[in-house]
Amino acid sequence: MKIQVIKNILDANDSIASEIRGVFADKGAALINLMSSPGAGKTELLDATLGALEGKLRCAVIEGDICTSLDAERLAHRNVPLVQINTETLSSLCHLEASMVREAAKSFDMDNIDIVFIENVGNLVCPAEFDLGADISVALLSSPEGPDKPLKYPQMFKSCEVAIISKIDIAAALGADMDLYENNIRSVNPAARVIRLSARTGEGMSDWIDLLKELSAKKTAAK
Amino acid sequence: MKIQVIKNILDANDSIASEIRGVFADKGAALINLMSSPGAGKTELLDATLGALEGKLRCAVIEGDICTSLDAERLAHRNVPLVQINTETLSSLCHLEASMVREAAKSFDMDNIDIVFIENVGNLVCPAEFDLGADISVALLSSPEGPDKPLKYPQMFKSCEVAIISKIDIAAALGADMDLYENNIRSVNPAARVIRLSARTGEGMSDWIDLLKELSAKKTAAK
Repeated sequence: MKIQVIKNILDANDSIASEIRGVFADKGAALINLMSSPGAGKTELLDATLGALEGKLRCAVIEGDICTSLDAERLAHRNVPLVQINTETLSSLCHLEASMVREAAKSFDMDNIDIVFIENVGNLVCPAEFDLGADISVALLSSPEGPDKPLKYPQMFKSCEVAIISKIDIAAALGADMDLYENNIRSVNPAARVIRLSARTGEGMSDWIDLLKELSAKKTAAK
Repeated sequence: MKIQVIKNILDANDSIASEIRGVFADKGAALINLMSSPGAGKTELLDATLGALEGKLRCAVIEGDICTSLDAERLAHRNVPLVQINTETLSSLCHLEASMVREAAKSFDMDNIDIVFIENVGNLVCPAEFDLGADISVALLSSPEGPDKPLKYPQMFKSCEVAIISKIDIAAALGADMDLYENNIRSVNPAARVIRLSARTGEGMSDWIDLLKELSAKKTAAK
């Protein structure tokens, strides 16, 4: 008999993340972990994404916030299964952990879901340390945050498969050079897929939606 | 003989924060803790502040970042004493602790400094939990982050004496209602002093500079 020793909180988290990956593989469903600073546009991107995928893929959402259900309320009009996690009542304030995602996903009818989006707590540091079992971790960097953030918060941008440069519609008002943002992301993570978009105007959204459709097709085929 | 039992990391931190308060009171110097999300404009505000106070108050800066000295380099042209803390080599990544500030302040000639600014790690969650011995904690909320942040990250806005709504120069491009930002701050912290400003255009800066001058005068008088 093999006895598994769970050494610390990160080992325990990784073990649950693997379990989540197993469940999603069995069901042929995709899991996406959206991370960023507060106010980088995760909820706005989710809202536009749910709209674009309506009638094409069956979506669900896990909303992570310290408190309130403000983000969940913004998405309620999309009529998708949605669970709100409030971390202030749990073990940690500043990030989601795999155990929270496992618990939230139990409320979904996973036989009838193609893709689950996790909106993590707004924080460019701590969430990057916790594997949630996602197929793709996505780091958003909004144009008003400035191009230096990938250099100053490298763990977040190293840990993601996809980096989204968001709010490009206000880049002109900021006098921001979007190439510099992308170059800084690539300097810490050359393998990341980089997408520039504005959820507000729709510019660049099709690249993101195509990526999600491809991932979902791949997961369904591998089921 | 009384034996002090330090129960946990927050007790230990509070004990060092009190020690820092004692040193700054003895010297008649003020200590300011600037906190916000990444990219809310702490460094730009500091740069403009150092410029406005040049020749009036003797300033010093403690720069807190996970890694790099990019922010310190942006401020180097101000020729003030400056210490860079990189948290990735210390006990925690995501916030400054009082022990780091105590250590950093040792490198200053405190008999010739009126005001020390701490730029905390960009994070709207964790830094709020750690008292750094400051006279004033300042939470910045930039207009592109959106007005709901004080409701979603209440601990940060409850813990501050001053809340600065920053980047007001791009509010029009965002279609942002600045009153909503201020009302949401006041709803979680009715006692906070709220200042709206743009470090880029200078609008609103005089309110902030006056506040610093008053604080410094008070500290000097109480020495």
